Amino acid sequence: MREFEFIEWIRSQTHLDPAAVPVGPGDDMAVVAWGGQRVLVAIDQVLDGVHFRLERCGPEAAGRYAMVRNLSDVAAMAALPVCAVASVALPKGMGRNEAEWLYQGMRRLGDQFNCPIVGGDVATWDQPLAVSVTILARPEGIEPVLRSGAKVGDALCVTGSLGGAWRSGRHLAFVPRVRHARLLAERYGLHAMIDISDGLAGDLGHLCRASGAGAEVQADAVPIHADVFAQLGVNPADLAAKDREREKALQAALTDGEDYDLLFALPAEGAERLLHDQPLDVPVTRIGTVAKGSNLVLVDASGRRRPMPAGGWEHST
Amino acid sequence: MREFEFIEWIRSQTHLDPAAVPVGPGDDMAVVAWGGQRVLVAIDQVLDGVHFRLERCGPEAAGRYAMVRNLSDVAAMAALPVCAVASVALPKGMGRNEAEWLYQGMRRLGDQFNCPIVGGDVATWDQPLAVSVTILARPEGIEPVLRSGAKVGDALCVTGSLGGAWRSGRHLAFVPRVRHARLLAERYGLHAMIDISDGLAGDLGHLCRASGAGAEVQADAVPIHADVFAQLGVNPADLAAKDREREKALQAALTDGEDYDLLFALPAEGAERLLHDQPLDVPVTRIGTVAKGSNLVLVDASGRRRPMPAGGWEHST
Repeated sequence: MREFEFIEWIRSQTHLDPAAVPVGPGDDMAVVAWGGQRVLVAIDQVLDGVHFRLERCGPEAAGRYAMVRNLSDVAAMAALPVCAVASVALPKGMGRNEAEWLYQGMRRLGDQFNCPIVGGDVATWDQPLAVSVTILARPEGIEPVLRSGAKVGDALCVTGSLGGAWRSGRHLAFVPRVRHARLLAERYGLHAMIDISDGLAGDLGHLCRASGAGAEVQADAVPIHADVFAQLGVNPADLAAKDREREKALQAALTDGEDYDLLFALPAEGAERLLHDQPLDVPVTRIGTVAKGSNLVLVDASGRRRPMPAGGWEHST
Repeated sequence: MREFEFIEWIRSQTHLDPAAVPVGPGDDMAVVAWGGQRVLVAIDQVLDGVHFRLERCGPEAAGRYAMVRNLSDVAAMAALPVCAVASVALPKGMGRNEAEWLYQGMRRLGDQFNCPIVGGDVATWDQPLAVSVTILARPEGIEPVLRSGAKVGDALCVTGSLGGAWRSGRHLAFVPRVRHARLLAERYGLHAMIDISDGLAGDLGHLCRASGAGAEVQADAVPIHADVFAQLGVNPADLAAKDREREKALQAALTDGEDYDLLFALPAEGAERLLHDQPLDVPVTRIGTVAKGSNLVLVDASGRRRPMPAGGWEHST
């Protein structure tokens, strides 16, 4: 079964009262009206053998990673985390000590973001570890940034650099860009944002589809993570001479997934200010422009245009 | 590993600001301050082979059941459900049609309680079905009823009748007592409440421990579900003559779990009014009294006192 198609079907079945639930399934978090306030809520699961390998990374990293994914959803809305609840299905063989480390991994990252774990559910079973975390967040003075607000002509930018996360294990140690997202939203008038979990190509597709637009991405502008070069065994300085290696590295940056950096759209003048200011402790790069239509186009240095690789990295498929 | 001990350890590690999180881990739902409002939140998972058997009950009942457990937590607080989010780990072999029925099972029960599913996460893996649901609720004019408010001398009452749910499959079809709980809390001044998921003995233990009290339960007053008699193959009318059968039935009612009926404590005068009024479409029965100390005592018709059976039904252990 195709996960994305099933999710699309669920969305087609969902009919919400927009006064009660201004943002339903299909964004990084749902937004729910709550008295005069708003509650943002998202759920994400991590499964041993799919999203991580417990025997390789150990329980603390697995627990931490469960929180990374959720805190990254909060970042993608430019919201502030409030608290989390977690359900944990522990394999029967797991000892108490390992279970405590699993909790510590979640807890410590939560503490860094003032996001306490306020409730949970623990069960044991004869199957691999499964952890599901739900996170609650609030706007706290910044209007939530949706996927759907990108406008034709907007600049497309990313934080950090992309690709190679899964193979290097970088995703397990990622520090979600909550603070970065709020600064960007507050100062630079973002129109739309998403965190890059499925790969740039896939998540750009999500953002553009939600916004009813297409995109042009400059192939040479995509920031490629050093992990990609290490995994390909090439020296970035040699790339100019090696078209084939450069293309492989680009594909990794576009489709690897698990980056958790931010992709966002904003007015061109805001992007200019932002690129000039470089106000974050990670680089911000303009990779392209929101375009009319629905096509995602990759443009190389010579002006050659080709379709973006089909997006949506699905774990272990 | 003992689940309850691990959960106790987690609670011992949890230090929350009571102004921000008035109720943390250890009740049916956490209560989180939200501007001038309060958000109640709980998470519960259901696992194939542990909480249900997919090949026996089918995907719609499994999905429905995932919502039962969560809506029952809302009932236990006398709160009103607002919305839910769900993560679903689908076994690779599950077809799209089955996945849709799983969703429909959750969705339809949610709709009955005006509790839409506003977000989710879908993954596939080579393991059995795992569903985790987080539910949000609000007080909506009724002060949340905690586990911790029972006072010495309070009457202990239950809704419905108990035992045999798992073997009969009754738990899969249960209609959570949300409306009942709110009526009870509004009219009869409840001091404490819990839903009976671990068995009456276990959940009475949770309620009494949270309240710093003990309890005396009249063995003959415990309402035994007809499923228990059917499973034991005895006619309830014959029980008077058969001490051994009666004892077996009582044990089932005290320890079987998965009942999802409500156990609550209230002032004796409130209980008298309630038992006189019988305002619900299920019977309410007084089973005993909150007592000093910390012992849970079972008192039989002849006045003989013995300890309540050790509580806490753990699934498939």
